[in-house]
Amino acid sequence: MELRLPAQADIIEVGLRDGLQSEPTIIPTATKLTLIRQLIAAGVRHIQVASFVNPRRVPQMADAEALCAELPSAPGVIFSGLALNVRGVERAGAAGLRQVDIGISASDTHSRKNAGLSLAAALEQVAAMVSAARACGLTVRAGVQCAFGCVYEGMIPLDRVVRIVEHLLTLGINELALADSTGMANPRQMADMLDAVLPRAQVPVTLHLHDTRGMGLTNVLVALQYGVTRFDAAFGGLGGCPFIAGATGNIATEDTVNMLEQVGVATGIDWRKVAECSRLISACLARELPGKLYRLQALPSGHMH
Amino acid sequence: MELRLPAQADIIEVGLRDGLQSEPTIIPTATKLTLIRQLIAAGVRHIQVASFVNPRRVPQMADAEALCAELPSAPGVIFSGLALNVRGVERAGAAGLRQVDIGISASDTHSRKNAGLSLAAALEQVAAMVSAARACGLTVRAGVQCAFGCVYEGMIPLDRVVRIVEHLLTLGINELALADSTGMANPRQMADMLDAVLPRAQVPVTLHLHDTRGMGLTNVLVALQYGVTRFDAAFGGLGGCPFIAGATGNIATEDTVNMLEQVGVATGIDWRKVAECSRLISACLARELPGKLYRLQALPSGHMH
Repeated sequence: MELRLPAQADIIEVGLRDGLQSEPTIIPTATKLTLIRQLIAAGVRHIQVASFVNPRRVPQMADAEALCAELPSAPGVIFSGLALNVRGVERAGAAGLRQVDIGISASDTHSRKNAGLSLAAALEQVAAMVSAARACGLTVRAGVQCAFGCVYEGMIPLDRVVRIVEHLLTLGINELALADSTGMANPRQMADMLDAVLPRAQVPVTLHLHDTRGMGLTNVLVALQYGVTRFDAAFGGLGGCPFIAGATGNIATEDTVNMLEQVGVATGIDWRKVAECSRLISACLARELPGKLYRLQALPSGHMH
Repeated sequence: MELRLPAQADIIEVGLRDGLQSEPTIIPTATKLTLIRQLIAAGVRHIQVASFVNPRRVPQMADAEALCAELPSAPGVIFSGLALNVRGVERAGAAGLRQVDIGISASDTHSRKNAGLSLAAALEQVAAMVSAARACGLTVRAGVQCAFGCVYEGMIPLDRVVRIVEHLLTLGINELALADSTGMANPRQMADMLDAVLPRAQVPVTLHLHDTRGMGLTNVLVALQYGVTRFDAAFGGLGGCPFIAGATGNIATEDTVNMLEQVGVATGIDWRKVAECSRLISACLARELPGKLYRLQALPSGHMH
């Protein structure tokens, strides 16, 4: 047997947005900018910096415009932002971003709870959001949330995800994201999903994975074997809700990068520098994060067991 | 592409030994017996219950004989113990176990620090241990520790591991274990190791994996693709040294079982019942463990993110 993996992969850092959005401790804009500069110095080339949502509902993202106004000049680095409606898309455009990330949930129940929209209504809205993005000169990444399962509805039928994907592709999106919003995906399911989606997608496909059940990197590994080369990740494994025990976050950027580099998939990222960001934010939040490598102060020294 | 995986796999529970050996809080024999009964009720069919080592060096294992004397009658369940020398093998035999687990480190430096033996001396000792086991009527599992790397020596040359494996096989062992004692293995390395070792091994091969760098389950996934069906695991991801931050433990039994079952590899184990053991020992040790699933009180309900 041979383990066939691509030579290179891209990491999209989502710690500033997905990682922080549920944290009760508000991180100052200056700290976010420090982190962004450190991430760029670590070699990260795509950072999702904020979401353009209601600041009363998500206070951590209230500084989206202020943050975007101060983003460093970094040739070759893409800054993107998340939007949940047309107003958010327009705010992202006005803030000077190049890319907006939009999404639609494959779970009707989750869509109603999270966005206040039925799946049918959300499908209509997403078309308006893509049009708004075009009008602002933004490229569009469109994601399917809860593509691998929903805590309310359980397993999501694969053909429903495929129908949503096909709808998104007809809108002329620039990139497709499949999101395992709740860390329910398993490697077999990932393989089945990619078998169904990759032949249909004429645009780059990115995976957004959480590690709630410890399968995050196993899903990365299978996706690599299928040729996927784009992954969201958050430094320290930030994400999830700190008030709910066990609601762990995104796959950790440094752990993901380390695995990729170890198996010969180049990322251009120095995971040790990303781990410094994780230690910084761990101190700011005064809690341990789910990531593994940021806790190891120096390698290969350490304890044998 | 197709994700080819075996239909079934065996889990060897090592939490009572590898999981507890470095914990400063001594777990009473009665609690260990409660855990053993619960693990059996969960469907676990092989439990490494203790190590027969110097009780002054490893106080947590001082009750090895007392524990073995009280083991429940459980048809079809294998209880095994670890030994580091001939005396330990004889103690395991006298305690009434059916199997002894012995090992040799692929790292000369680790061997000297851990067992006080050079690699050459350890190779001689292991032959004496296998003979002693035969004399006691014990089956022998022999493991190569630090097969995937050593915190002192870094990468271990693959051909050194292969030479040790060939030496062990000439001794007539019943089972071979490859141990990633420090969680340094990556999936590519695992593939290369299995490519080299599996064609030589005429006995079952078990993997002993730690999750120090978050790659534990990715290594399980690759090994499954190579046809390996035997894995050590510890409930809650116990193991490592609680005094050293980030020195995380074995792959967590419940997380491993869940992944296996989710991808269609039957284990016969109910991970929810294993997770109850993890919650019990987490309370006894008054600390959070590295495992993921034991923290999720109920699935699929929970928080969306």
